Amino acid sequence: MAVLYDRVALIGLGLIAGSMSLAMRAGGLAGETVGYARSPETRAAARQIGLVDRVAESAAEAVAGADLVVLAVPVGVMGAVAAEIAPHLKPGATVTDVGSVKQAVIEAVAPHIPAGVHFVPGHPLAGTEHSGPHSGFAALFRNRWWLLTPPEGTDPEATARLAALIRAMGANVEDMDAAHHDLVLAVTSHTPHLIAYTMVGVADHLKRVTESEVIKYSAAGFRDFTRIAASDPTMWRDVFLQNKEAVLDILGRFTEELFMLQRAIRMGDGAQLHDYFTRTRAIRRGIIEAGQDTSAPDFGRMPAGAATGQD
Amino acid sequence: MAVLYDRVALIGLGLIAGSMSLAMRAGGLAGETVGYARSPETRAAARQIGLVDRVAESAAEAVAGADLVVLAVPVGVMGAVAAEIAPHLKPGATVTDVGSVKQAVIEAVAPHIPAGVHFVPGHPLAGTEHSGPHSGFAALFRNRWWLLTPPEGTDPEATARLAALIRAMGANVEDMDAAHHDLVLAVTSHTPHLIAYTMVGVADHLKRVTESEVIKYSAAGFRDFTRIAASDPTMWRDVFLQNKEAVLDILGRFTEELFMLQRAIRMGDGAQLHDYFTRTRAIRRGIIEAGQDTSAPDFGRMPAGAATGQD
Ligand SMILES: NC(=O)c1ccc[n+]([C@@H]2O[C@H](COP(=O)([O-])OP(=O)(O)OC[C@H]3O[C@@H](n4cnc5c(N)ncnc54)[C@H](OP(=O)(O)O)[C@@H]3O)[C@@H](O)[C@H]2O)c1
Ligand SMILES: NC(=O)c1ccc[n+]([C@@H]2O[C@H](COP(=O)([O-])OP(=O)(O)OC[C@H]3O[C@@H](n4cnc5c(N)ncnc54)[C@H](OP(=O)(O)O)[C@@H]3O)[C@@H](O)[C@H]2O)c1
Repeated sequence: MAVLYDRVALIGLGLIAGSMSLAMRAGGLAGETVGYARSPETRAAARQIGLVDRVAESAAEAVAGADLVVLAVPVGVMGAVAAEIAPHLKPGATVTDVGSVKQAVIEAVAPHIPAGVHFVPGHPLAGTEHSGPHSGFAALFRNRWWLLTPPEGTDPEATARLAALIRAMGANVEDMDAAHHDLVLAVTSHTPHLIAYTMVGVADHLKRVTESEVIKYSAAGFRDFTRIAASDPTMWRDVFLQNKEAVLDILGRFTEELFMLQRAIRMGDGAQLHDYFTRTRAIRRGIIEAGQDTSAPDFGRMPAGAATGQD
Repeated sequence: MAVLYDRVALIGLGLIAGSMSLAMRAGGLAGETVGYARSPETRAAARQIGLVDRVAESAAEAVAGADLVVLAVPVGVMGAVAAEIAPHLKPGATVTDVGSVKQAVIEAVAPHIPAGVHFVPGHPLAGTEHSGPHSGFAALFRNRWWLLTPPEGTDPEATARLAALIRAMGANVEDMDAAHHDLVLAVTSHTPHLIAYTMVGVADHLKRVTESEVIKYSAAGFRDFTRIAASDPTMWRDVFLQNKEAVLDILGRFTEELFMLQRAIRMGDGAQLHDYFTRTRAIRRGIIEAGQDTSAPDFGRMPAGAATGQD
């Protein structure tokens, strides 16, 4: 494939930046990739495994001469990083971010972007529970959505070029309003993560009652929750603080609904429970039809080696 | 392997019974398997695919002459099924069940078991989100736990023979007190399922706001929840009603904990969130070390065909 940007700077060298670098390399999409991360340890690790073509010793050095700058750091530090790199951005360059929250990032980053530089905020809906410089892989974005939330007045050419890069990495691009993005993601990702963290926390407190049995006998349901709750604490702290309003809104709805089901259990109202559980099945069907998951039973739950099939 | 029971009767022909039948057949563990399910449709389906050696037209017919009778129906009907089969049980036979709740099932079933018949309650910690006569597969129990909760005074030989069958189907057997079982499962399975159902229900209500976007962009977290929440409504209604006390206890702890985190988000207390999320990671590590899941990133999230690896 053709080179889409002569030089791409990645600020942050974790799961998302690493996967982008590997995907761009696999597709020959960037003339050169330059990366920077805060800690010497991460920079050394990235250098050792050749995660990017060149590891810079400062964010300023990384963005110098870059045609595309990707902010791939926790959403809480996007503003500070933008302030740090702003004076060093090449005129005509595009800055994008991959943060899981969009309104707060736009508010934090946009004021720092100099005239003549394009800011096209984005969010790849792709990830695993792993993080850090060793966690990336080129196929992460394949067949996944990548939402762009360009504010009004964003240069359409800059957006189109970024979209071409994203498509070349295997993802599907869609535009969305930033506020709407934050609400949809509060439902589909942020609140479920908080709930999973909470349930795993409850199990942790019960350890004295249940000894190690909660771990030993962890069944479907809880096991999925622990995977979700193994995600990076810094990333998720920032997501909840930066998408506070939408998360609190959805949490309010969630507890109302939970109390209704709790009451049905207490009252022995089986019909209400059955109705509710029947309705939620339809959503699952929709997701499978939308191609966002498979209908294969969760063979993945089996320990490696025992599986007779794959997801 | 050697035949462990000359005739095994399966009451219910869904995921668990079907998987048991296929596992017993694969291992040559039963002389004959006989099955019965409530609806003519299920019996016809089971007959058509040869799920058991013989499909009976009544529960009484199915258990006649059987050395092992397996109650594989929703926990809410275990008592009624036990009453129905009781007069037809062969002296010296063993009755077991596979219900996800143990105290309520023992209370409902034990009074019907005639003298000279052994009742050994059990629960395989294995399942998928699918149900019905087409959902079973022989490897379901491989490397999974199967808890037995025999009340005091249960014949040790009957328990040992059942344990041998279970091991021959690939599972690991452990004994547990029934009340303790119900608490551990409320934490690891029942409450997580209720929470997943609730979150998916919230998304369903928001459909008007988010159109089909919640489905289209369903991300990690929510997607896992929808799989859990696609499980059989009847089975789960019964589980919550029959394990009411333990589920309400855990739900109470869960909402307390959730309110604490909700408050931390509202107050902007990032340190508290970060601490909490760091602690929950350790539990995940424990589960991987206990061999109940793999540390491979969740490649299963990718649509079939795009995956570069398997779980
Ligand atoms: N993980 C997902 O599932 C996912 C999915 C979509 C979007 N996102 C978003 O993608 C972004 C990155 O997430 P990730 O999963 O790639 O995280 P990650 O693996 O934890 O990597 C984060 C990177 O940011 C660096 N960093 C942190 N603070 C920095 C600073 N002040 N200056 C420079 N570098 C800094 C870290 O460096 P050190 O290693 O030196 O600390 C690390 O290299 C986040 O905004 C997240 O919301 C994540
Ligand atoms: N699924 C899991 O993940 C899992 C895991 C461990 C334990 N369990 C337990 O295993 C048991 C069975 O679950 P499953 O997943 O195998 O359910 P399933 O696939 O829905 O099958 C249930 C079977 O029970 C039959 N049935 C229902 N009421 C009956 C009655 N009154 N008389 C005779 N047959 C009746 C059904 O017949 P029709 O098809 O004719 O309705 C069906 O064949 C439940 O107690 C559940 O708690 C389930």
